[in-house]
Amino acid sequence: MITNTKDKSLFFFSKIRVGYFYSMISIVLLGAGNVGQHLFEAIKNSKDLQLIQWYNRSLSRIKPFENFVPITDDITALKPAQLYIITVSDDAIRPLSESLNIEQGLVVHTSGTASIHDLSKKLSRGVLYPLQSFTLGKQIDFSRVPICLEALDKKYYTLLEEVAMALGSPYYKINTEQRKVLHLSAVFINNFGNHLFRIAHEISDAKSINFDILKPLIMETAEKVQEMSPYRAQTGPALRGDKKTIKRHLKLLDESSHKAIYEMLTQSIQKTHGR
Amino acid sequence: MITNTKDKSLFFFSKIRVGYFYSMISIVLLGAGNVGQHLFEAIKNSKDLQLIQWYNRSLSRIKPFENFVPITDDITALKPAQLYIITVSDDAIRPLSESLNIEQGLVVHTSGTASIHDLSKKLSRGVLYPLQSFTLGKQIDFSRVPICLEALDKKYYTLLEEVAMALGSPYYKINTEQRKVLHLSAVFINNFGNHLFRIAHEISDAKSINFDILKPLIMETAEKVQEMSPYRAQTGPALRGDKKTIKRHLKLLDESSHKAIYEMLTQSIQKTHGR
Repeated sequence: MITNTKDKSLFFFSKIRVGYFYSMISIVLLGAGNVGQHLFEAIKNSKDLQLIQWYNRSLSRIKPFENFVPITDDITALKPAQLYIITVSDDAIRPLSESLNIEQGLVVHTSGTASIHDLSKKLSRGVLYPLQSFTLGKQIDFSRVPICLEALDKKYYTLLEEVAMALGSPYYKINTEQRKVLHLSAVFINNFGNHLFRIAHEISDAKSINFDILKPLIMETAEKVQEMSPYRAQTGPALRGDKKTIKRHLKLLDESSHKAIYEMLTQSIQKTHGR
Repeated sequence: MITNTKDKSLFFFSKIRVGYFYSMISIVLLGAGNVGQHLFEAIKNSKDLQLIQWYNRSLSRIKPFENFVPITDDITALKPAQLYIITVSDDAIRPLSESLNIEQGLVVHTSGTASIHDLSKKLSRGVLYPLQSFTLGKQIDFSRVPICLEALDKKYYTLLEEVAMALGSPYYKINTEQRKVLHLSAVFINNFGNHLFRIAHEISDAKSINFDILKPLIMETAEKVQEMSPYRAQTGPALRGDKKTIKRHLKLLDESSHKAIYEMLTQSIQKTHGR
């Protein structure tokens, strides 16, 4: 899949690898789930990365892309590359990496929870964890996808930095322990945060209220903590110790589980702010 | 405070009041807290609204603005206006409205929780509740401030619509019961949502992780539900029933209150999605 245009660029200097002759970083992508498909797009769109192969257990999933990249479902037929990116589910990382029969190049997974040691010992190992919520079918600008990098070997860490730069992403050196806490933090922010939106939707819908009314508040809540710490951004009856409003709110909630969540988060806010 | 420029506009047709000769809506603002100050700016910047007086119990608070608007701390000295907007705290709405000695014009409060009947019976009463999180010192674009309107008299409801349009805000007809539920929904979204950000900050800070890594995820979480219902936007280990990850997450949490919140929200997600 090396095109003429790309060959010509071999004679140019790279912005990234100053002092080297330019060469694109060759990548084999493994897996075609949510993260795999978003990485496929991002790698394809980067002028400094060259996707030389896409592997997936089931060929049908990647068949629509065969005009853009050589595809395969044969794990023993992987091409030589500088980087192999495994985007399969956590449980499949170990068996897949064990079955890899490659002689050189770095192998990374993209999981927030799997250890770097879940990759087979016989490989050069690393992690490239994009910390973002990907939605199938919704393209995301990779400048808004922070990438957490880890490698056992310093030389390979540098390669991962170059890949992150080529994707246009902010990147951070994050070890396995930190990465697991980041993944957990992401659950609080994204999964639990979204569930609070759902509760708001549920209780307002029950009174025939248009959810659109609440959307600007959702945006403002997120924007506020881009500039200010969440500690300082906190407001509301829990923080003020406004017992009257809290009591009225609890009375308004029909669902016992909503009441319990309200009470627990109110107590937690008060504990955090020393009330 | 009628300037010449404004007088001239008397001879133009209004976009808002088609068929009328143009006249600005005259407003007296009462109170100078967070909402009061943001409304002051927004009214001042609207070419269709004329702020003719600002009342506050303590004059010192509004003194800096006396070159823009006549100010007073004398509740018996209010000027005649079409609209009086009360932005004082919930408990102060009733006594303040009782002490109003005005003969005409609509009186509204801006509270999410107070009833329209908290305003004195002798007045023409309404509510103008801006559903947004205001931060002192941070200007907000009122096109992003949905306004919930209520009035006992239809004629006055039309006036409130005109005010909302003049502010450039989306507006909705919302009765007292609905408004209370909206205020409660806002607590789930803004106060509780922000507290989840705080927990994420706390646990990542404890592992020396830069909170910046999580900021794009906060934005994406908010943006996703601008297009998609929170029900459809839900992802994560709770939704998938991924017991292994849930167990690992609980083990990672040191604080018992964080564990309890994690468990309760996980259960609530599973209940919502029929797991």
